Amino acid sequence: MLKEKSRDERIRFLFEPRSVAIIGASHDRGKIGFAVLRNILSGGYCGAIYPINPAGGEIEGIPVRRSLQEVEGEIDVAVVTIPSPLVFAAVKDLCRHNVKNAILISAGFSEIGNLEEERKITDYANEHGMRILGPNVFGIYSSSSNLNATFVSGNIPRGHLAMITQSGALGLTLVGQASVEHIGLSAIVSVGNKSDIDESDLLDYLYRHEETHMVLIYIEGIRNGEKFIAALKKTTRVKPVVIIKSGRSQRGAMAAASHTGSLAGSDDLFDAIARQCGALRAESTREAFNWCKFITNNPLPRGENTVIITNGGGAGVMATDACEKYSVPLYDDAEDLKQIFTPVIPSFGSAKNPVDVTGNASLADYTKAFDAALQSENINTVVGIFCETAIVPADHLKEMVETNVQRYREKGKLIIFSLFGGEKTSQYEIEARRRGLPVTDDVYDAISTLGAGYRYNRYAADLPDEEADVAMDFGAIDEIVRNAAAAKRYFLLAHEAQKIMEIADIPIPVTMNATTLEAAITSADSVGYPVAMKVISKDIIHKSDAGGIALGLDNRKEVVAAYEAIMRNCRAHVPHAVIEGVSISEMVRPGVEIIIGARRDVIFGPTVMVGLGGIYVEVMKDVSFRALPLDQKEIQTMVKEIRSYPLLLGVRGEAMKDINKLVEAIIKISAIIRRCKGITDIEINPLVVYEVGMGAKAVDVRILLSKG
Amino acid sequence: MLKEKSRDERIRFLFEPRSVAIIGASHDRGKIGFAVLRNILSGGYCGAIYPINPAGGEIEGIPVRRSLQEVEGEIDVAVVTIPSPLVFAAVKDLCRHNVKNAILISAGFSEIGNLEEERKITDYANEHGMRILGPNVFGIYSSSSNLNATFVSGNIPRGHLAMITQSGALGLTLVGQASVEHIGLSAIVSVGNKSDIDESDLLDYLYRHEETHMVLIYIEGIRNGEKFIAALKKTTRVKPVVIIKSGRSQRGAMAAASHTGSLAGSDDLFDAIARQCGALRAESTREAFNWCKFITNNPLPRGENTVIITNGGGAGVMATDACEKYSVPLYDDAEDLKQIFTPVIPSFGSAKNPVDVTGNASLADYTKAFDAALQSENINTVVGIFCETAIVPADHLKEMVETNVQRYREKGKLIIFSLFGGEKTSQYEIEARRRGLPVTDDVYDAISTLGAGYRYNRYAADLPDEEADVAMDFGAIDEIVRNAAAAKRYFLLAHEAQKIMEIADIPIPVTMNATTLEAAITSADSVGYPVAMKVISKDIIHKSDAGGIALGLDNRKEVVAAYEAIMRNCRAHVPHAVIEGVSISEMVRPGVEIIIGARRDVIFGPTVMVGLGGIYVEVMKDVSFRALPLDQKEIQTMVKEIRSYPLLLGVRGEAMKDINKLVEAIIKISAIIRRCKGITDIEINPLVVYEVGMGAKAVDVRILLSKG
Repeated sequence: MLKEKSRDERIRFLFEPRSVAIIGASHDRGKIGFAVLRNILSGGYCGAIYPINPAGGEIEGIPVRRSLQEVEGEIDVAVVTIPSPLVFAAVKDLCRHNVKNAILISAGFSEIGNLEEERKITDYANEHGMRILGPNVFGIYSSSSNLNATFVSGNIPRGHLAMITQSGALGLTLVGQASVEHIGLSAIVSVGNKSDIDESDLLDYLYRHEETHMVLIYIEGIRNGEKFIAALKKTTRVKPVVIIKSGRSQRGAMAAASHTGSLAGSDDLFDAIARQCGALRAESTREAFNWCKFITNNPLPRGENTVIITNGGGAGVMATDACEKYSVPLYDDAEDLKQIFTPVIPSFGSAKNPVDVTGNASLADYTKAFDAALQSENINTVVGIFCETAIVPADHLKEMVETNVQRYREKGKLIIFSLFGGEKTSQYEIEARRRGLPVTDDVYDAISTLGAGYRYNRYAADLPDEEADVAMDFGAIDEIVRNAAAAKRYFLLAHEAQKIMEIADIPIPVTMNATTLEAAITSADSVGYPVAMKVISKDIIHKSDAGGIALGLDNRKEVVAAYEAIMRNCRAHVPHAVIEGVSISEMVRPGVEIIIGARRDVIFGPTVMVGLGGIYVEVMKDVSFRALPLDQKEIQTMVKEIRSYPLLLGVRGEAMKDINKLVEAIIKISAIIRRCKGITDIEINPLVVYEVGMGAKAVDVRILLSKG
Repeated sequence: MLKEKSRDERIRFLFEPRSVAIIGASHDRGKIGFAVLRNILSGGYCGAIYPINPAGGEIEGIPVRRSLQEVEGEIDVAVVTIPSPLVFAAVKDLCRHNVKNAILISAGFSEIGNLEEERKITDYANEHGMRILGPNVFGIYSSSSNLNATFVSGNIPRGHLAMITQSGALGLTLVGQASVEHIGLSAIVSVGNKSDIDESDLLDYLYRHEETHMVLIYIEGIRNGEKFIAALKKTTRVKPVVIIKSGRSQRGAMAAASHTGSLAGSDDLFDAIARQCGALRAESTREAFNWCKFITNNPLPRGENTVIITNGGGAGVMATDACEKYSVPLYDDAEDLKQIFTPVIPSFGSAKNPVDVTGNASLADYTKAFDAALQSENINTVVGIFCETAIVPADHLKEMVETNVQRYREKGKLIIFSLFGGEKTSQYEIEARRRGLPVTDDVYDAISTLGAGYRYNRYAADLPDEEADVAMDFGAIDEIVRNAAAAKRYFLLAHEAQKIMEIADIPIPVTMNATTLEAAITSADSVGYPVAMKVISKDIIHKSDAGGIALGLDNRKEVVAAYEAIMRNCRAHVPHAVIEGVSISEMVRPGVEIIIGARRDVIFGPTVMVGLGGIYVEVMKDVSFRALPLDQKEIQTMVKEIRSYPLLLGVRGEAMKDINKLVEAIIKISAIIRRCKGITDIEINPLVVYEVGMGAKAVDVRILLSKG
């Protein structure tokens, strides 16, 4: 295995190679082996270039080596374009030559079910110190070294957006679209089957890459979620990352899995984790490009006070709706708005936000309103809405848009336009958009874009706290887990789970076990009435079906009757069951029923969940997720995210609930799932949360163990 | 007041006038009074044209009359373009001349707060048999009579989409956009302040208008919701209606209200009603145009079996996600798909849906796959996704798209394309879209469009049932309401509301009233333990705060103690209260707590709501709405819409609940709200619903009365 440091170093050489070999460089202009060489040449790459082809000769004026043996110098990157059956031999050859990185453009591996060959090649390469990009990729573009080692035709505009794509075909079109929209690129990496190098490795390079101001990633599935989370968190601290992850829907996830052979994972969990890591998740490619273009081309706003300036009331109302949808706060200090805008708008206009300059507004009227907003210290952003009228014809658009964009940028403010109209307006909109100007033909696009910028800003401004953690006797927990595992059980029995709650100091209902009727009566007296009685037996899984549960026993007489009934029922239901006795527990006082769960996810590692508990879990699916570790603030945010949060605040005049105790319980089960590797799942449902100061009680706890 | 029939007749003359007068026709080319006349002329209108201006002379070769007196013939439509202070006098003049319709382009009325003048004008006109369109409009375009009586510049392409818009500025740009996108129009009506003619009047004409195949409406607020519902239902039975209603958000609704002076109403309710009436509600103008263009240009599909054919796996996965979002069903008979596609796709492609022809697919490969889908009887629709590659360059797009669109249309099937790529692809996409071809640059747009088409189809295929109604002694209910109203109460007391439940035969918990301790004991014995006891007193509103409620009384001893405690507490809490006694009621067995409500909405008239009840009402807001009347099927759909519907089906192995009794209760309170005009609100919360056959119980009922 390679050491972490040397791996990092090799990734740098992938982006900044001193030499590139093309295995399968072709004389045939229709072949990929030709296209890659041509692009390397025309891209202006200054390092050594070694086309390799047994036929020898010259391609585009560069001498072709018949084999690697003919290459004298070191090779940092080898691009492999030969058919899949020949790849393993070529990789062995590359390893002998100590090549640092191989880019396997060749297809025909795990994406068509041939996982074995791919694994063999990658394992061999890694064992010999070489890293693999691919297979099944279109190559890499890196502005740092003017390297276009892809078979993408056409010029790639240089700029500040790095793109990483798991899909080749879609990736190629993203490059094409970037070019159409004049979005300059600093890097493009096709990761394909990700047999070795994945998004996380690339982010490790890109987050420090100065030319890269923003990263766009298209993902279908993640293999190592913990590594991805770490890389993503590190990157979003210094630059925005937009993610398009397809496979949102269940069926889409299936399609993605069949397509890339990677597990798509639960989309809800991915979505929560992306947000937690400060990434901006776009739904469609259009949305992603709008965001990338706007964020790379504009200053980060200093605040979020947004004002809509429109000459059409209807369009203003639509923009207002969009602001609510995308959490864009409209500035609403009525007095200040009046002072700013009343002097500059017609008397029958509106100085409220949206500011309506009316359909009679001329170019000069618009300009006055934009100016007023620009001068106000309280306004950070303007959404300029233009409805084509006879008074401001489309010919004036260029001046209105471009002068204002210029002036707002100079002042570090944001302005974005939404243009409605006929042929000329539409022509200008398309042309301006392609020149990178912040114009859209739909208010929803404009506001979604602002919303993304604000979201990133909020994240970047909100520095993470210390990890929320807690000490407890993890050794004692491990011991319980070991004993259960030794008994070949993959779950804990109720009393074992309760013991763990005691170790974690999470209150559970008082419970006593009794093996005789007399003991049951004494226990009930000591627990305090009313009590619940449940049969204890390893042989009875569904206690309720077996008649093994009695609730709300109010006195000794009822305890006696219940004990006898339970014994009778259970013997009748499961004749051979070994009955160890009964548990007597306090009847839990009602409160807000919450579910909390911690889980070692196969992809993302330790994760935690909180939501509305009891029978509503499955029906309402009102839960929120996070990957661990978390800080206290993030746990609070997570709790606030659930729709039923008002129940914790107290509805209908009820007292506020003990949210601190809930947060504590989350921290505790998070600590257990992180430390105790034998445990895969902890679920408390319900955790009954009482009024402030009255704590919470874990009524039912299920703990599953690792089978490995 | 005008009679209904003559009103209808007049609206026809608005669209098909035999003569048009322009009040304020102007010699000044910059004036609206000139633009309207010029457009009428250049539009090819064949009826009589009477420009009116005291200055006389000639405009564009047409003699100008100095006043209406100089006009010999009848006038069906008068377009008024003079300043607002002069409008009333002009309207009086028009009435004297028996003009049928006046279009008040003039602004300066209710939209700037001048409601009084507007009301005065409209009342006068209506009293004298003239209808008013506007004020504050840009006019009307009607293809039936080649009439362009608007100040919209440029040619309006003739076609089959009718547009109604409440916003002038936005409406003008919609016309512009329609022209850019080559969407032919059959009518355009600007309704402005809607002082008289509104969307409903226009739908009454348009639903029978043969040239109109589809209607697009932009609304901010509705005044007469019941009339709108009737007109909409009638129209959607025969042609699709797309609605853009802004004011979705609370703030947006405020902005809309300030802008048009009309009540925007609750957006959730509007949304539910639009769906109930079969209208397609679009969020943005882009979405609306995509839908209109696709639906007017293509056959209605015979089924919804949809297949995605793609050369890029990633794009296919995104399309799959979009299908889930927009309820577009992907055809998934694996065996059939295999038979259809395996012979025509490469061996490493996928015959599953999405069908992946792979990045190596040529134009011929695409064609083979499209052909296979076209030939299959089981496939109704194809989503063709194209990612630009070296193998299928953008130059081939035209052939691929246009041949297939043609062939699919001929067979009555649907095909829609999503094109991804660089400059040439983008150019072709823009150009093809403008020619009305079904191409998009985003899979979400394509699938949203299909989803809208399917949704309309489903609605149109699903014929309404008979109204769900029920007989009961409405007279007795009215009597209770009258008595309460006579006592100057705007709400019913608990026993009055219970009496109404009895009349409606909706079970309530058994309750008996007692004025003495002895009677309380007898009542409790007869109701059956456990019981609840509540104080009866008009002077004690918050019984619980006054200590006037005791629950779960298990025996006579507890009844005695509770009675004494309640008397003591209430006297201490409200010393001067007249205590009439206590009510003794059965403690209700737990079940699924549902809320049902019926309400006479100020805009939409009688409406009904069902949802998750109890304390979750406010937190979960899990409710669905409908306007009345409803058929049985629609009520069932409404119940199924709530997220907590699984609770009624029975979760965790519980028995199914008595949904029929719930539906019956909805029908009953619907009947009451429709018949008993004195009642404005009925709310049952909770209605506890038990297992099938066990019915439901209305535990708490609140009934509010009209104050009018």
